[in-house]
Amino acid sequence: MKNWLLQRVDLTPNRLAVRFNAQELTFKELNQRVQKLVRKLGAPLAAEQRVAIITPNNLDGYLLILAVQQLGKTIVFLNRRLSQRELAYQLQDAAIRVLIQDDDYELRFTGISQLTFSAIKALPEQACHAVATFDLDDVATIMYTSGTTGNPKGVMQTFGNHFYSAIGSALNLGMLPGDVWIAAVPLFHISGFSIMTKSLIYGMGVSLYDHFDVDAINTELQNGQASTISVVPVMLKNMLAALPANTTYHPNFRTVLLGGGPTDMPTLERASKLGVAIVQSYGMTETASQVVALAGEDAARKLGSVGKPLFPVEIRVKTAADAKTGRVQVKSPTLTVGYLNNEAKYQAAFDDGWFDTGDMGWFDEEGYLYIQGREGDMISSGGENVFPDEIESAYAALPEIETIAVAGVPDEKWGAVPVAYIKFVPGQSLTQATLRAFGRQELAHFKVPAKFVTVTDFPRTASGKLQRHLLAEQSFEIIP
Amino acid sequence: MKNWLLQRVDLTPNRLAVRFNAQELTFKELNQRVQKLVRKLGAPLAAEQRVAIITPNNLDGYLLILAVQQLGKTIVFLNRRLSQRELAYQLQDAAIRVLIQDDDYELRFTGISQLTFSAIKALPEQACHAVATFDLDDVATIMYTSGTTGNPKGVMQTFGNHFYSAIGSALNLGMLPGDVWIAAVPLFHISGFSIMTKSLIYGMGVSLYDHFDVDAINTELQNGQASTISVVPVMLKNMLAALPANTTYHPNFRTVLLGGGPTDMPTLERASKLGVAIVQSYGMTETASQVVALAGEDAARKLGSVGKPLFPVEIRVKTAADAKTGRVQVKSPTLTVGYLNNEAKYQAAFDDGWFDTGDMGWFDEEGYLYIQGREGDMISSGGENVFPDEIESAYAALPEIETIAVAGVPDEKWGAVPVAYIKFVPGQSLTQATLRAFGRQELAHFKVPAKFVTVTDFPRTASGKLQRHLLAEQSFEIIP
Repeated sequence: MKNWLLQRVDLTPNRLAVRFNAQELTFKELNQRVQKLVRKLGAPLAAEQRVAIITPNNLDGYLLILAVQQLGKTIVFLNRRLSQRELAYQLQDAAIRVLIQDDDYELRFTGISQLTFSAIKALPEQACHAVATFDLDDVATIMYTSGTTGNPKGVMQTFGNHFYSAIGSALNLGMLPGDVWIAAVPLFHISGFSIMTKSLIYGMGVSLYDHFDVDAINTELQNGQASTISVVPVMLKNMLAALPANTTYHPNFRTVLLGGGPTDMPTLERASKLGVAIVQSYGMTETASQVVALAGEDAARKLGSVGKPLFPVEIRVKTAADAKTGRVQVKSPTLTVGYLNNEAKYQAAFDDGWFDTGDMGWFDEEGYLYIQGREGDMISSGGENVFPDEIESAYAALPEIETIAVAGVPDEKWGAVPVAYIKFVPGQSLTQATLRAFGRQELAHFKVPAKFVTVTDFPRTASGKLQRHLLAEQSFEIIP
Repeated sequence: MKNWLLQRVDLTPNRLAVRFNAQELTFKELNQRVQKLVRKLGAPLAAEQRVAIITPNNLDGYLLILAVQQLGKTIVFLNRRLSQRELAYQLQDAAIRVLIQDDDYELRFTGISQLTFSAIKALPEQACHAVATFDLDDVATIMYTSGTTGNPKGVMQTFGNHFYSAIGSALNLGMLPGDVWIAAVPLFHISGFSIMTKSLIYGMGVSLYDHFDVDAINTELQNGQASTISVVPVMLKNMLAALPANTTYHPNFRTVLLGGGPTDMPTLERASKLGVAIVQSYGMTETASQVVALAGEDAARKLGSVGKPLFPVEIRVKTAADAKTGRVQVKSPTLTVGYLNNEAKYQAAFDDGWFDTGDMGWFDEEGYLYIQGREGDMISSGGENVFPDEIESAYAALPEIETIAVAGVPDEKWGAVPVAYIKFVPGQSLTQATLRAFGRQELAHFKVPAKFVTVTDFPRTASGKLQRHLLAEQSFEIIP
């Protein structure tokens, strides 16, 4: 295919491409700035096959990501919040020699040429052209994902993976010329980068945020300046909570794409009253973003489900014997072509041609998928399999609870028992007895947490996903 | 990819799939009826690689087209209006042994098993399963196209061609869940069949018409029951003319996809006042429908242009020396993989990797494509190249003219001269002198038709495209 940015500029030069703080760029303006960077970076990156980038969500980073892509280099996205040791591993694994980083980034890596944004701007422009085409089979990006054990894996995503991801999403959510998608999730993560890709393929504007500025976002959505936003559940809750009373969103705002776990009925109902469709979704770095999504019209009827596959995707649940729950496995043109330097681990993830996600789930009789959680998160308690997600979803309906996370802790009698880590809404609380009584009413007895504790913060990945295995390391106090 | 119909039924079983006369079928109902036909047709088609179909636009034909596709057979679409001689050639060329046809079709072909719809319905059901997957590289359909000379060519279109066509269109026009597309163009032509394909891929309803029932169509569009319609210019003119005074269309009606030639400014202005976006488009059987389209927002500003390429498509105009006009050539994932039994003709159409459309055109300074006409339609008059399209577009602005077609006729002095064939709006007319004066005002003198004649009808292909080379064979009288 023709270079997506160049094609987009030819097709719709005057449409909004990106908005950041007070600044707006059309595709034509965006491309002018990107090609200027291409001419600056051509020489220093000439010998590189892969280039690493560390950037917060800002306009400079946005332009540089595109510039590296224009030069035909594979972009290795690094997470700014990782430790020196973690990043040193990834830099070495990807054989990186040049790291592009924002000026405020302080860590230094031996043997790596670290180019700051300022240094790049100061480079002279030299004749250098963008690549003419994007080959769908070429590796466009590498993103590292951590399992609970072992080294992180460099997930190689091709242009084809990103293309089909954008198409699958459009076929499900719909799209209209003039759409704008709010990107307040990290660009270095597939949730954010997939919005950049959609922008080029759809001709869609991106409204970029460097943090989840809930008031600015609500204002934009009330003014009709955006059609779609990607969020994790806590962001959505905060948006709805911060919306001024007796006001509503603009009808241009069609869709909340919700990842990172299920939301609760009160939030769904609130959103429904506001006319906003919440599309629950399920995906991972290995599948270049969402592969399963629940339409807004089904949100209430199928509470807790992540929905149905996107059009180009197939999902199966591989169960043992008569079990209802089994391993969630996927076939998709968005599926990664491999883990960098770890073909064995990639091959090991396949089961008869299906890629095993590592998640456990089940289909209802209408073919809607429910994710019960990572196999690794499962709590084996007295012979019963308990999934934290299910317990969290039940408790999320309590208005006093801002966030809840459940993890297993070792127990002499049962092997393991679930423990609930709770952050209350400011000024609110519930007693241990009330929480237990609620659980007894909503859940099987072995799923009711053995203990309820309060925490002030939750360990999350850069993309906002809960890291349950780190919960026990948090400081907490037992709820009276 | 998973079989598109089966995937669609799994994803959105309860959405409208097709509406014909008073009948509506959801995807679930559609599939039940299609799979019933699969079980009836499995045995009689077991040994066939390709199956031919002759059908008007009706529900039985719609279901049978899908059933043959479900069985993994290549569908050879035949045009019901062709002569026995023409069809016999195509049946033989495609090595057809079984022809599925509507009950009213009367021609008989030797050596061909002709299965009528009634005969198929009377067949017993036998265990037979639809194919599990559609391979994007497999030939899904063959459609014959006629050049002005030689035998018709069987254009082989793969599932990938159709998929990318649907995607390219969606990325340009946008799409929303709940869209309905009116198919009043023939299903056996790419303009109609591409709507069937979009239905499966988008999860979109099709409102099927067996003829261009302008009042029923206007009613549907006024009631908000459809979002899109495919038309040729004369259909659009008729729609707007028949719209009751002081009424308008429903806002659900977003797009007129216009093929088969340019429209005129008064029609554009009328549509614009009604809030309907007219998307002029350009494509051919060889590119599995539109590859270039003009957004509604540009329709007036770029009158006469067919627009810009769809996102997956590249277009170039290959000019000689300093010429502005040249040969229109295309690269596209929708491009046919070949002409059946005529690899030489297919290869001959390529110019350095680009497929030559046989059309002449030019780009303006903003990259909008203008088609001047088929190279074969070009009139070489006194050393000047004259394109009928341009003359027709100019005269189409006159409200007294319902339809105009221009073709070259031999002339002793100039080699050839343009002659205009005109059908006036009922009750209206213009004199030869007025028509000539208008031309002098709008066109270079050598483009002004040497003669204006009236005709009652125009020779058109089944898809409504004008057949200029047959114009001289029409009975006509010279306008006084």
